[in-house]
Amino acid sequence: MIEPLKLGVIGLGRAFTLMLPTFTADPRIQLTAASDPRADARERFAHEFNAKSFEDAEALCADPDLSAVYIASPHQFHVAHVKLAAKYGKHALVEKPMALSVAECQEMIAAAREANITLLVGHSHSFDLPYLRARAMIRSGAYGHVRMINALNFTDFLYRPRRPEELDTSQGGGVVFSQAAHQVDIVRLLAQAKATSIRAFTGNWDAARSTEGAYSAQIKFADGSFASLTYSGYAHFDTDEFMGWWGELGQGRDGEASYGRARQNLLKASSVTEEIALKNARAYGTSGSDAFRIDGEIAHNHFGLVVASCEHADLRPLPHGVMVYGDKARHLDELPAPKIPRAEVVDELYAAAISGTPPLHSGEWGLATLEICLAILEAAKTGQEVELNNQV
Amino acid sequence: MIEPLKLGVIGLGRAFTLMLPTFTADPRIQLTAASDPRADARERFAHEFNAKSFEDAEALCADPDLSAVYIASPHQFHVAHVKLAAKYGKHALVEKPMALSVAECQEMIAAAREANITLLVGHSHSFDLPYLRARAMIRSGAYGHVRMINALNFTDFLYRPRRPEELDTSQGGGVVFSQAAHQVDIVRLLAQAKATSIRAFTGNWDAARSTEGAYSAQIKFADGSFASLTYSGYAHFDTDEFMGWWGELGQGRDGEASYGRARQNLLKASSVTEEIALKNARAYGTSGSDAFRIDGEIAHNHFGLVVASCEHADLRPLPHGVMVYGDKARHLDELPAPKIPRAEVVDELYAAAISGTPPLHSGEWGLATLEICLAILEAAKTGQEVELNNQV
Repeated sequence: MIEPLKLGVIGLGRAFTLMLPTFTADPRIQLTAASDPRADARERFAHEFNAKSFEDAEALCADPDLSAVYIASPHQFHVAHVKLAAKYGKHALVEKPMALSVAECQEMIAAAREANITLLVGHSHSFDLPYLRARAMIRSGAYGHVRMINALNFTDFLYRPRRPEELDTSQGGGVVFSQAAHQVDIVRLLAQAKATSIRAFTGNWDAARSTEGAYSAQIKFADGSFASLTYSGYAHFDTDEFMGWWGELGQGRDGEASYGRARQNLLKASSVTEEIALKNARAYGTSGSDAFRIDGEIAHNHFGLVVASCEHADLRPLPHGVMVYGDKARHLDELPAPKIPRAEVVDELYAAAISGTPPLHSGEWGLATLEICLAILEAAKTGQEVELNNQV
Repeated sequence: MIEPLKLGVIGLGRAFTLMLPTFTADPRIQLTAASDPRADARERFAHEFNAKSFEDAEALCADPDLSAVYIASPHQFHVAHVKLAAKYGKHALVEKPMALSVAECQEMIAAAREANITLLVGHSHSFDLPYLRARAMIRSGAYGHVRMINALNFTDFLYRPRRPEELDTSQGGGVVFSQAAHQVDIVRLLAQAKATSIRAFTGNWDAARSTEGAYSAQIKFADGSFASLTYSGYAHFDTDEFMGWWGELGQGRDGEASYGRARQNLLKASSVTEEIALKNARAYGTSGSDAFRIDGEIAHNHFGLVVASCEHADLRPLPHGVMVYGDKARHLDELPAPKIPRAEVVDELYAAAISGTPPLHSGEWGLATLEICLAILEAAKTGQEVELNNQV
């Protein structure tokens, strides 16, 4: 018998919908309460999970039934909501990006430490099992040292429906906060040394949606290795083509039928209000769709092309395992298809909350990733290499 | 009736073998003479083409029958051989890399100008038709401005048989001189502005073959666009997997059967002498194989994954055309399979020599590419961004 973790959810938006298949399928989680400003989302949640709902995040955190909260509110509220969780002694799983500044991350870490709660940052794609497996392979030493990492992801991120703040960098908008947080996390996970500096370009190419929609960054590591990270959220080419048309969420995709869909769909919105309505149609609520539910066979989540070049092998995480291109032969180190998507998040959260196991994706981990995201923005703005001081 | 260009060849090594299928199949070329220090190569050439042969490059250049010379000698001799061609009034097609320093390139350009001969640099893969087609599409304006270019090529370059100087950077060895010369050329071809600066890492990961075997470089352009270029010659993963297993030379490949072949083959050589013998077995000579001959169907040459991201399309040159990923639809802009591989080189050489048409791949073009290659080496060594001053 598993004692489920009683979880409260702050924010029933898009991030929550992406974690919902996990929370509903994993017996280690009991969805116990939620808070959201949208009444229809609260009502649906209360009804669907026979659970409590609150308009206010503090009221949720104060609920003595809960032992942990999942903070999936917009980025700019993460710091306040983690502090609320700490105030009421609840473990906190906070979505990426952890916050909008290094100082905010430090406040969150301090608040968690003082309250003796566990702080985890995620889901990010560095939780995905194929990346964790590749990390374990690298750490085994079987393939020699990692020398270079390449990560390339082309998506239509910028043309999905957005709230205005998602297109405003000062409020945590743009692909550096939202998407580099994944890619940097994965690269850090595979590297064998601390990152020491960042060089980067960012692209802001659509005046109607003015924020960073693309970037190209180089990371230097203390052991002399380096990484190249490229992301385009303006893309027409889709790197899922290199992943056998398995999507980011582990869903099977029809590359032909889905071509250009985001741009076409966005044409339906002729105002900010209409675009927010489109966005909410992908969120959770009585008027929202069930489009986030994953039917049929699933594969592991992924974040595009990643190749870690070791002395004696290139390792390429894929939706069904890790392709090991060795000196003499190549083989797929196969991973069983997941029964529950993103169960790795619950693995860490549950172990931390129930057994006190320190999580990999700790506050310090999240801060280190955010520092690199901020360095990408600064390096691109100033044209200078940016040194890092908060890596773990 | 086509008046063929009477061509002399300086250096019957590997580069020559890669151009041989072109020269023998293209009626615009008559292989008239060759020079090489290896007697067996000279004998085979004289016999196979009923042509003259010389031990000495100057004697070849002095031959009044020739109107042009193809300089495929080791990199460090390019400057001397171009000067010889100029001295005797022969047009010069010089292999990449053009030379080992900017000053050498300037000497070559000056010598050609004074002698009123045409100087071309190539073959480089920027001659390949799919890249030229992508350039034309970009210049048409149909897809908006190029914002970002990504190029990624993973090969076993460093484990192919090498002469010692090919593994000595000071003599033009390593992948920056030999391979960046291709990748930089392609990226420059697709960009719509001059490159202004370079940031780079290089990898020198095998003490037994100590030279740059990998690099990751960022190019900044004057119009605010940027490019990311990655090459690994230590690779186990092979980017031909993304090209439908069509190889760099347009040959069909069996990815399974050829896996790991370079590293395995190199195990046969236990000394420098034995490795040179392996190398010569791939060159031209009576003891050399015919392995360079391409049988069966061919596709266009390529240099790995290249994606040019324009405002309204991502363009991806492929062995059979250019994949156009547009706003609404994607399609392959198909190019007929080549009848003669690398005929584009003869197009430029013939037009320049016969009609005086200024070549795209001029001395100034080659200098600009070499400047970037040298900047990659300098940027990696110093850790500093390197400004460019010789771009065209």
